[in-house]
Amino acid sequence: MKKLSIGIIGAGRIGKIHADNLLRLPGVEVSIVADLFADDALQEWANARGIAQVTKNSDDVIKHPEVDAIFICSLTDSHVPLIQAAAQAGKHIFCEKPISMDIHQTKAAIEAVKAAGVKLQVGFNRRFDHNFKRVREWVEEGKLGDPHIIKITSRDPNPPQENYIEKSGGLFMDMAIHDFDMARFLSGSDVVEVFARGAVLVDPVFAKYGDVDTAITTLTFSNGAIGVIDNSRQAVYGYDQRVEVFGSKGSVSANNDFPNTAEISTSEGIYRDKPLHFFLERYNEAYIEETRKFIESLRNDTEIPATGNDGYQAELIALAAKLSHRLGKPVRIAEALQLAEEVRV
Amino acid sequence: MKKLSIGIIGAGRIGKIHADNLLRLPGVEVSIVADLFADDALQEWANARGIAQVTKNSDDVIKHPEVDAIFICSLTDSHVPLIQAAAQAGKHIFCEKPISMDIHQTKAAIEAVKAAGVKLQVGFNRRFDHNFKRVREWVEEGKLGDPHIIKITSRDPNPPQENYIEKSGGLFMDMAIHDFDMARFLSGSDVVEVFARGAVLVDPVFAKYGDVDTAITTLTFSNGAIGVIDNSRQAVYGYDQRVEVFGSKGSVSANNDFPNTAEISTSEGIYRDKPLHFFLERYNEAYIEETRKFIESLRNDTEIPATGNDGYQAELIALAAKLSHRLGKPVRIAEALQLAEEVRV
Amino acid sequence: MKKLSIGIIGAGRIGKIHADNLLRLPGVEVSIVADLFADDALQEWANARGIAQVTKNSDDVIKHPEVDAIFICSLTDSHVPLIQAAAQAGKHIFCEKPISMDIHQTKAAIEAVKAAGVKLQVGFNRRFDHNFKRVREWVEEGKLGDPHIIKITSRDPNPPQENYIEKSGGLFMDMAIHDFDMARFLSGSDVVEVFARGAVLVDPVFAKYGDVDTAITTLTFSNGAIGVIDNSRQAVYGYDQRVEVFGSKGSVSANNDFPNTAEISTSEGIYRDKPLHFFLERYNEAYIEETRKFIESLRNDTEIPATGNDGYQAELIALAAKLSHRLGKPVRIAEALQLAEEVRV
Amino acid sequence: MKKLSIGIIGAGRIGKIHADNLLRLPGVEVSIVADLFADDALQEWANARGIAQVTKNSDDVIKHPEVDAIFICSLTDSHVPLIQAAAQAGKHIFCEKPISMDIHQTKAAIEAVKAAGVKLQVGFNRRFDHNFKRVREWVEEGKLGDPHIIKITSRDPNPPQENYIEKSGGLFMDMAIHDFDMARFLSGSDVVEVFARGAVLVDPVFAKYGDVDTAITTLTFSNGAIGVIDNSRQAVYGYDQRVEVFGSKGSVSANNDFPNTAEISTSEGIYRDKPLHFFLERYNEAYIEETRKFIESLRNDTEIPATGNDGYQAELIALAAKLSHRLGKPVRIAEALQLAEEVRV
Repeated sequence: MKKLSIGIIGAGRIGKIHADNLLRLPGVEVSIVADLFADDALQEWANARGIAQVTKNSDDVIKHPEVDAIFICSLTDSHVPLIQAAAQAGKHIFCEKPISMDIHQTKAAIEAVKAAGVKLQVGFNRRFDHNFKRVREWVEEGKLGDPHIIKITSRDPNPPQENYIEKSGGLFMDMAIHDFDMARFLSGSDVVEVFARGAVLVDPVFAKYGDVDTAITTLTFSNGAIGVIDNSRQAVYGYDQRVEVFGSKGSVSANNDFPNTAEISTSEGIYRDKPLHFFLERYNEAYIEETRKFIESLRNDTEIPATGNDGYQAELIALAAKLSHRLGKPVRIAEALQLAEEVRV
Repeated sequence: MKKLSIGIIGAGRIGKIHADNLLRLPGVEVSIVADLFADDALQEWANARGIAQVTKNSDDVIKHPEVDAIFICSLTDSHVPLIQAAAQAGKHIFCEKPISMDIHQTKAAIEAVKAAGVKLQVGFNRRFDHNFKRVREWVEEGKLGDPHIIKITSRDPNPPQENYIEKSGGLFMDMAIHDFDMARFLSGSDVVEVFARGAVLVDPVFAKYGDVDTAITTLTFSNGAIGVIDNSRQAVYGYDQRVEVFGSKGSVSANNDFPNTAEISTSEGIYRDKPLHFFLERYNEAYIEETRKFIESLRNDTEIPATGNDGYQAELIALAAKLSHRLGKPVRIAEALQLAEEVRV
Repeated sequence: MKKLSIGIIGAGRIGKIHADNLLRLPGVEVSIVADLFADDALQEWANARGIAQVTKNSDDVIKHPEVDAIFICSLTDSHVPLIQAAAQAGKHIFCEKPISMDIHQTKAAIEAVKAAGVKLQVGFNRRFDHNFKRVREWVEEGKLGDPHIIKITSRDPNPPQENYIEKSGGLFMDMAIHDFDMARFLSGSDVVEVFARGAVLVDPVFAKYGDVDTAITTLTFSNGAIGVIDNSRQAVYGYDQRVEVFGSKGSVSANNDFPNTAEISTSEGIYRDKPLHFFLERYNEAYIEETRKFIESLRNDTEIPATGNDGYQAELIALAAKLSHRLGKPVRIAEALQLAEEVRV
Repeated sequence: MKKLSIGIIGAGRIGKIHADNLLRLPGVEVSIVADLFADDALQEWANARGIAQVTKNSDDVIKHPEVDAIFICSLTDSHVPLIQAAAQAGKHIFCEKPISMDIHQTKAAIEAVKAAGVKLQVGFNRRFDHNFKRVREWVEEGKLGDPHIIKITSRDPNPPQENYIEKSGGLFMDMAIHDFDMARFLSGSDVVEVFARGAVLVDPVFAKYGDVDTAITTLTFSNGAIGVIDNSRQAVYGYDQRVEVFGSKGSVSANNDFPNTAEISTSEGIYRDKPLHFFLERYNEAYIEETRKFIESLRNDTEIPATGNDGYQAELIALAAKLSHRLGKPVRIAEALQLAEEVRV
């Protein structure tokens, strides 16, 4: 059987993680890696992994005759043109989230993909997390009956650097977008209305960029369920990622992961270590799994587990959340879309 | 030392519980019980407890020369006139929640209490729950730094009867009012804005009375924190009462209480029994404690742990929540008060 | 229906607890209390509870014409003669554990009870604990299949005073006897062999009286299962009372009880309060329940839930454990009995 | 820096795992693999990993001029001669447990290692488990004060095949040996006496080979602590691996690992998935870590974390346990050694 050949555009932290995860899969090879800042260190990194070609030019990846699929791990700005070019070149695509920060561009990218008949997976790694997957399974099996309330807690251990904040697109587009996708994933339903209440409580620097560091977002789903997400840029005790789905027949919740199960009891009380601190520790396995599933979908021509539309919907919710926070009122998805249309020009 | 003499108005379930809890306290006697429907069974119940007098007339309690304090456990409609009469008679007052369903009446009652210089405690029993008390202690000690996010889950095991729903004042005033008080208690702050999203997902009967059975309510506090409460009238697995306070230095959460700690592991998985099902089981101890604290406040002339103003504030939040749900937009407390003023006539 | 009349012999801590628990039961009255050191304080205590008579003479209880059943809560030394006298007087008996420290005396007491046709319950309160009861239920329902391994952890928060140690009968007879009964209760089987390894690790004062403060005891049951109990006189984190039954189809365990479920997460880790510290907190409910069940057995003439034989068997195991520790080898119950016979004279 | 070159003898399941773990380490290469049953499949396996040489002859590994260290993963019978030959050839050695089933042979092997001045690590992978490592850290830091009681639960999910049972050396030597090492690791002390009570409760086939499938083993440590291990060949709910160390200042315990944290609450109760089922899942990370630590010890010439003496001591305890079970009495380590000496010839 011919090996699946993968090209990677963008060799930052996440690009390299995908490369390593791909290299562990049988029947998969990484043929080429492009990075604007490709240097000797990157070349060495590629050599150690038997990756044949390193380039500064993303076109080399897109036009590579052997490459079957491209992982787009470059800056968000570049996602849409790269998706369009890759689609036109007939390559399947794995693209990091968000597809773009402009909902129209995202739509254009998805249409290009559709037109070319290639597959597109968006990097919603949390769908592949062992805990959330199990919650989704139980929901799907009907164990909870009809979902009534979806709850997501999503808190980062540390706020990002100021230069990251500046270009991040804000808490809703940059951070909560994962949770918006999770809300759709867990409820099995689209969102129709959003109310977001944000606050700057962690660091005033967020206010400087019109951003918030703390937020509570209420969601109304098309299937009638309601949901709430709470976000913070700083949970001093570590990466806090929990979900709960409450329904007519029961409730299912997933707690954090911990580095160990040891617990100490003394005259002072009972103590255990904090949850895993870093998203790469917590979602290490999920990154492997999303790559595996993407490859599997290509190989068997089966459904992609996190589609372009999933990316688009999550961005729409983020847009509505941003607008809701700015306008101080609930915003319907249709309304957000219309407002986006109006400010387009 | 002279015994503290207590009179009880309203000998339904909760009135009887208070009586039994009072009778366990040293130096306290229950001298008289009034109930509109006083009958032989009540007389017998009183005899078995050495309660000297049973009457149909609440005035007999209010005018009783020995009585130091009155427990008002009658229907909500009667609370305000009884508070006013008891205050005028110079009796201290313990009143079940809510004080009334009319915010102006509640205010009038509180003013009567103030004018008379008596003490008034409102029956927010959950403040005395072993779990929530511990959470509050840690918050007060500054263990969490500044509070950023308050989260409350409050779900009943079963919806009430239709005739109860009809006169309940609705989910926000009848059920969530406990959670609104809990939010103020845990955050140590007043609420300035409310956004409530309600839904009828459990039983269409709620719609018949313009009520909801499921709700997510976002709160903005005067100290900058934000909060969220999720309510359901039916959690099939039992009484679900959990809280979390997340702050700049950490987070504290309280889980449900369970009937036992036994856990069984089989080839099917791991299983344990459901949480306590009924509010009287879960808050049994809290009812005892709130009574004890009330008596202690009277005896030592110290601060009441759940004041008239606490009752008033919780009702204001409930009012704002109701309005928010109706209007489909966030409602500021000041705005709710003004709207209430306008509809007053 | 005539009230059941109870007499109490021995009004120390546990006698008073039983009195209060009895007084809460409908249709039960405490008619008389005897205590060698009866004084004004005891008289006042009795008055406050409507107990008609206080005496220094236990015979007044035994011969009291109205008394149906007697609670024997006096020093261990006095148990056997009191049981014999009470039985002869046709009174039902509740006796604190152990019945005696001499296995022959215990047997004699049981025979007197049998001859008189009265009921005898031994104060193995832990059988009525909400956690252990649930474990036993699952075992009885066959949820675990055949029991293979019984594990009991039983550690006191603090060692007793030296004068208590001196007369306690030693760790096995005084403390582990509860666990020996629990082992029989959980396994549904008698013990045939014991191996005990004790150590003095907490306080050298135990060595002074030939006693130990730490022990691991292996049990072999007649149904083939094996079991192990670990005891310590000092668990600085509180009263540690856990059990586990492992069988062919699964395992069931019961954890400690805690004063609350609150849990705090900070940059230092996750912390919760210690388990309940004191046996009266932990077993408060169990004491009430054992009294209730005793009264129920009398009223309905049903089986006693902790019989004289249960007391005898637990003492036999304690005796075998003591001998095993002394001899440094496993001791069969039959062998222990024979040795006891030989040293009898 | 020159790469460390590793040779592997025995390419069964565990040999292959070690190979893959070694290949992930920077600066390490696997140069040669020997297996008595080397075939095309093994050659292919080696090719895919860039392992230069595959052989049937273990001598090719021992005499390989480049090889720095040898992993001995062959049958237990072959361990001692291979250790002796490898030591003589000046190779460092990693040997799977047990070193041998004959305590004298084990001693001879250790002496050969000492004479040659090479390093020897024994495959006690559990020392590297994230949970037990954390327990050990807390013990070492003195958080628990002096250890009083060590408790280990170690139960396999399924019994082995009959042909494995036949040659396994029995429960104590084959299975509990890991726990004997864990007991020494956690207590930081040698064992001086053993009492083992075994039973055949899972499957009569164990009796056929004079073996047991269930056991409780009491240990006495040279530092005064006492310990207990319970073993079963069949825990239907999965791989059960828990420890507890109880000391003068507190207690620390480690629970099992689970595939996820999801928990479902319904009207039936609360349910979660079973613990990880298989030792390769549970100890996957520990296998990686023990290899990493071995390589680190070689590179920095630092202490081996699980030495030949650790292997020897665990075997001695297993021997004493076996004898104790057979003789029906506690056996001191010195006594076991002497008995082994006597039956030698």
